[in-house]
Amino acid sequence: MRIAIAQGIAPGPDALDAAAAEAAGHGARLLVTPELSLTGYARGLRGAMPADDMVGEIAARHGVAVVHGGPERDGSAVFNTARLTGPDGATLAAYRKTHLYGDQERAAFTPGDRLVVQADLDGVRIGLLICYDVEFPEAVRAHALAGTELLAVPTALMRPYEFVPRVLVPARAYENGLHIAYANRCGPEGDHDFAGLSCLAGPDGEIRARAGSGPELLIAEVDPARNADARAATPYLTDRRPDLYRSPARSPRP
Amino acid sequence: MRIAIAQGIAPGPDALDAAAAEAAGHGARLLVTPELSLTGYARGLRGAMPADDMVGEIAARHGVAVVHGGPERDGSAVFNTARLTGPDGATLAAYRKTHLYGDQERAAFTPGDRLVVQADLDGVRIGLLICYDVEFPEAVRAHALAGTELLAVPTALMRPYEFVPRVLVPARAYENGLHIAYANRCGPEGDHDFAGLSCLAGPDGEIRARAGSGPELLIAEVDPARNADARAATPYLTDRRPDLYRSPARSPRP
Repeated sequence: MRIAIAQGIAPGPDALDAAAAEAAGHGARLLVTPELSLTGYARGLRGAMPADDMVGEIAARHGVAVVHGGPERDGSAVFNTARLTGPDGATLAAYRKTHLYGDQERAAFTPGDRLVVQADLDGVRIGLLICYDVEFPEAVRAHALAGTELLAVPTALMRPYEFVPRVLVPARAYENGLHIAYANRCGPEGDHDFAGLSCLAGPDGEIRARAGSGPELLIAEVDPARNADARAATPYLTDRRPDLYRSPARSPRP
Repeated sequence: MRIAIAQGIAPGPDALDAAAAEAAGHGARLLVTPELSLTGYARGLRGAMPADDMVGEIAARHGVAVVHGGPERDGSAVFNTARLTGPDGATLAAYRKTHLYGDQERAAFTPGDRLVVQADLDGVRIGLLICYDVEFPEAVRAHALAGTELLAVPTALMRPYEFVPRVLVPARAYENGLHIAYANRCGPEGDHDFAGLSCLAGPDGEIRARAGSGPELLIAEVDPARNADARAATPYLTDRRPDLYRSPARSPRP
């Protein structure tokens, strides 16, 4: 499955429509965009809600699935949500960020309470996480054990945390034998300075495609058969010792 | 705390005595040696048992603590064990490898059933894992939650798995905010070709010292105060969502 990653895409339907057109022109079946891509990160934090988002129309117009992000209101709660829209415009999955980052996000959003959200696209099991989530090995492990083959991760990673896309994301892919599409924002926005470095990491830990520090549309290939190869080479999932991992969570020493 | 890592040390007491002398000469308080350092990896797999190992005498003679490895018989079982010996020659902790690697190790050894084994040395909480164990994020997380500040990891990592010391070990240190001393074998031994690349990884994910592909004594500094700095910068341990991680282990799709 060919995918596209739209690093640093501007908020709103016009940029998404252009990116979907370009992705489809490259033969991509899935376009992954950054965290809160509909509103922008800073505006999303400040409580902006997406207008009629048109993502379904855009996906259907270009025949390409889209992962995008935006604030989602449910009663009095607002979640930081990523949604997978199919190439026919229908919503296939919606995931509410479970690991909120820092005081600003915790003030703006309610954390989700469902860790593993998946849908199938062209026979590939797609999972969704958002930004800080993927830094927790527990979250990616849960996806691997539930059969996720491609983890799509809209993100808004800031400088100086480049260690995350450079080291932690490839480590997550390797230790779980799956693909990770990590779609970041880039450059300054409000008080934030986003790090770029979006990537597709393969299940062997190798980077299939890597963006720089500016806006960019990455095109890369996801091949779930390589997941099986990686798991045969190093069978982490079957060599685990869950009988030893069940101790209650304890607090670290201060 | 200054430590030494003896990459590729030859089996037997003479090489250990020389390494301990050199480590002590550099002011190191702890010397970490590779997996099955007493017998050699291939001989340990074939069932060789360490002779009177003299590790206590050597540690006391040079006033330096030692982490070493060797087969350990207990009744009819043989474990792949790492032991921390204090600078007075007393055993402070013994850990039996819980994640055995491949058919050869599973034929030679019984897996341990206690994941977190620790002891304090000069006020630093030392934890022990062995080789393949550290590649499982669950194992290092358990240590972090139990207060391990320096994880000492005797290892026998082969080519072409250089991804482990290059990416996975720094990732483990970063995602848990602790130091990892990874002491590998190097070069050919029997059917194996060991990768070297021993290192001390700091809690910020940076490599404090890195060996090449041949025998080498690394000297590096462990500073537990840096663990607290890293955890303040990115509070993974307190931002975890253990309420979401308790789902039963499931098998991956074939």
